[in-house]
Amino acid sequence: MADSFVPTARTRITREPHRAVYDRAAAYAILDDGFVCHLGFAIDGQPFVIPTSYGRRGDDLYVHGSSASRMLRGLQAGLPACVTVTLVDGLVLARSIFNQSMNYRSVVVLGTAHALEDRAQKLAALEIVSEHILPGRWADVRRPSDIELKATTVMRLPIEEFSAKVRSGPPVDKEEDLGLDMWAGVVPLEMVASAPLPDERTSRDTPAPTYVRPYIRSGWRRDGAGSD
Amino acid sequence: MADSFVPTARTRITREPHRAVYDRAAAYAILDDGFVCHLGFAIDGQPFVIPTSYGRRGDDLYVHGSSASRMLRGLQAGLPACVTVTLVDGLVLARSIFNQSMNYRSVVVLGTAHALEDRAQKLAALEIVSEHILPGRWADVRRPSDIELKATTVMRLPIEEFSAKVRSGPPVDKEEDLGLDMWAGVVPLEMVASAPLPDERTSRDTPAPTYVRPYIRSGWRRDGAGSD
Repeated sequence: MADSFVPTARTRITREPHRAVYDRAAAYAILDDGFVCHLGFAIDGQPFVIPTSYGRRGDDLYVHGSSASRMLRGLQAGLPACVTVTLVDGLVLARSIFNQSMNYRSVVVLGTAHALEDRAQKLAALEIVSEHILPGRWADVRRPSDIELKATTVMRLPIEEFSAKVRSGPPVDKEEDLGLDMWAGVVPLEMVASAPLPDERTSRDTPAPTYVRPYIRSGWRRDGAGSD
Repeated sequence: MADSFVPTARTRITREPHRAVYDRAAAYAILDDGFVCHLGFAIDGQPFVIPTSYGRRGDDLYVHGSSASRMLRGLQAGLPACVTVTLVDGLVLARSIFNQSMNYRSVVVLGTAHALEDRAQKLAALEIVSEHILPGRWADVRRPSDIELKATTVMRLPIEEFSAKVRSGPPVDKEEDLGLDMWAGVVPLEMVASAPLPDERTSRDTPAPTYVRPYIRSGWRRDGAGSD
């Protein structure tokens, strides 16, 4: 795949085009920082938007869930999908309501997903999702049984038609508003993990694995290390 | 409106029905904790899922944006919408991959939005959205001019057909997995605001307003006060 791409009519950013990112690596970095997407599909014109976890490897996204779920049955029936990943980085406080904004990074992927049927492919995809969310965990946990694997639908969505959008930095006020005597700026927001909580059946002698102490994704800061 | 409601065939939770919340107050608490929704609409069967800010007052959601946006033009044309709000509260590490999960709270609202045409209604709705995101800011900033208001579409979506889903607490493992010698538990995740960053044009003599130091939404903890 090329490093940059030509948007289609459906994915060209028309609103605030200067925030559009048509760079595959930049879009993938956003996908890799997130782990919950909002997956849309439509039945008889009615859209449904469902949050779900995902993983990325190469030019594919993977989602999974119960074989009985409406979402996955719909996708298996060939319904077009939209997968959107949004990371909120801050509130942008301008001097006018009109210029209030948020700092964010988002990616929208349009396409049609396909169910994986092959046992080894399904397992590999589940590992991709698991390792996307929490690198290291896959090596520790019990793998799916055949019955569990049958009850799980795993789907691949090629990242072909997509767009990304990024806003960062301070507010952009109109020239005539700059003279207003008012605080303007950014309130940074981040997802932060705090100390892992063992369940009742975890032995006191079993330390939390290194991959959760602390759990930090790319771009996250360590809990308690804030600048406040 | 009644405190509880009867789900429709489209909003009845079929997957993990024990996680369904059919209580209006509980759903509203989730909507009030969030401020970014994922709004879905479909054109010729192709869904689009766009992140956007929102506000709630009473039994209505409000969204706004540029009058030129594809999303708002589509909603104005009467396309059915789906608004989903998801708050991620933690990673749930079970002893098997099959039982891995997340703690989350989510609300899905189905319906048709209507544009507000009346100037006073539009202003009131913009205030609702602004105060939903950042209570206190509306009183400080410059209000929209007539030109800005004309360039802004504000829409109301009645919260009539909806569902909510909540998962909380430790992992739920199969009985036969409980004997596995493995750490299992929850990694709590939260959105945290850090110290506000004034822009270059904000005078050093202008303190950050009290509503951003610190910015804490209901259920958020104060930055730096983690249990780590």
